[in-house]
Amino acid sequence: MSLLPKSIQNLINEFSKLPGIGPKSASRLVFYLLKQPDIDLGSFSKAVEDLKKGIIFCDTCHNMTEKNPCVICADNRRNRNLICVVEDPLDVLAMDQIDGFEGLFHVLGGVISPIDGVGPEDLKINELLQRLESKEPMEVVFATNPSLEGEATALYIAKLLKQPKFKHIKITRIGRGLPMGADLEYADEYTLSKALEGRREF
Amino acid sequence: MSLLPKSIQNLINEFSKLPGIGPKSASRLVFYLLKQPDIDLGSFSKAVEDLKKGIIFCDTCHNMTEKNPCVICADNRRNRNLICVVEDPLDVLAMDQIDGFEGLFHVLGGVISPIDGVGPEDLKINELLQRLESKEPMEVVFATNPSLEGEATALYIAKLLKQPKFKHIKITRIGRGLPMGADLEYADEYTLSKALEGRREF
Repeated sequence: MSLLPKSIQNLINEFSKLPGIGPKSASRLVFYLLKQPDIDLGSFSKAVEDLKKGIIFCDTCHNMTEKNPCVICADNRRNRNLICVVEDPLDVLAMDQIDGFEGLFHVLGGVISPIDGVGPEDLKINELLQRLESKEPMEVVFATNPSLEGEATALYIAKLLKQPKFKHIKITRIGRGLPMGADLEYADEYTLSKALEGRREF
Repeated sequence: MSLLPKSIQNLINEFSKLPGIGPKSASRLVFYLLKQPDIDLGSFSKAVEDLKKGIIFCDTCHNMTEKNPCVICADNRRNRNLICVVEDPLDVLAMDQIDGFEGLFHVLGGVISPIDGVGPEDLKINELLQRLESKEPMEVVFATNPSLEGEATALYIAKLLKQPKFKHIKITRIGRGLPMGADLEYADEYTLSKALEGRREF
């Protein structure tokens, strides 16, 4: 391995840290980049460097955004009485590209997972409860991933929402069009549409 | 898509340009990077920026290197009468990690491919001929990829080496342990070892 110039080995190591990229794929990517013009390398490097610049979290839905409130929360045409609860910003993208959903979102920032040391207090659960304390009738649709942790997290929050002070809230979750263990953000739009149609009360 | 902050969309676009990475995988990688500490992002960005810094080509074997001659060409314990001809620097890595090869390399820098506009003059073929003009008995092992272009390139060079002034040179190619259409750099060491053992004269 010492045969490779240090700068090449260096970038191979960096790529190998990414999920799903092994040392061979990493080499491939690096040798591909070596053939690209300097200006393309520069813009790639800058895109990595600037990744977190200007990114804040929306105070309402806790999605990543450039302005607060985010474009979704600021959009007056949306149904403010329908809130879809998801794990991650990528899930917002997945849900928002389907026809038939015009509500708002709430991004938990993960799932309850004792193995990874993530408890309810690490997620935006209290923020969700506060958001729901208005007396307007509302529907909360859970769209956590159909994994053990995603289900447990939805159940945990649904239980909290069974308190009398939340009795104006209808709790649903998206239908099980999704196979267990799959990832929400990889599902196709049709499956997601069906799942949304088939949502049912907890 | 306008839902995503610009810096995120930017890096997704950059990753999507890489071979084998589609928009969904690119999103995954970017959201993974978003969770990494700034210092890791910085070192990734720097590794991309510095990729080509200090890389030169060895005047003898035309491999990428940091010093000229490269570590392989400068290694006196190697058999200087055995030269393995490969397409790319990654192929040098693949061949060099097997036991049983102790010779030198010659990196062509690609293959003859009229469709891609690559002719013999674009490769380091003349440099190979010059290298072989010494009167020492020598063996040249072709280890181009077992693709149409790889085979054609090896045949083209082998024909040139049939000239009388190269009659001190033995021409071989690595055995067909490799399935046609595969890529040399992805082959396992055992297959490569077998292929080297089973090399035969053109």
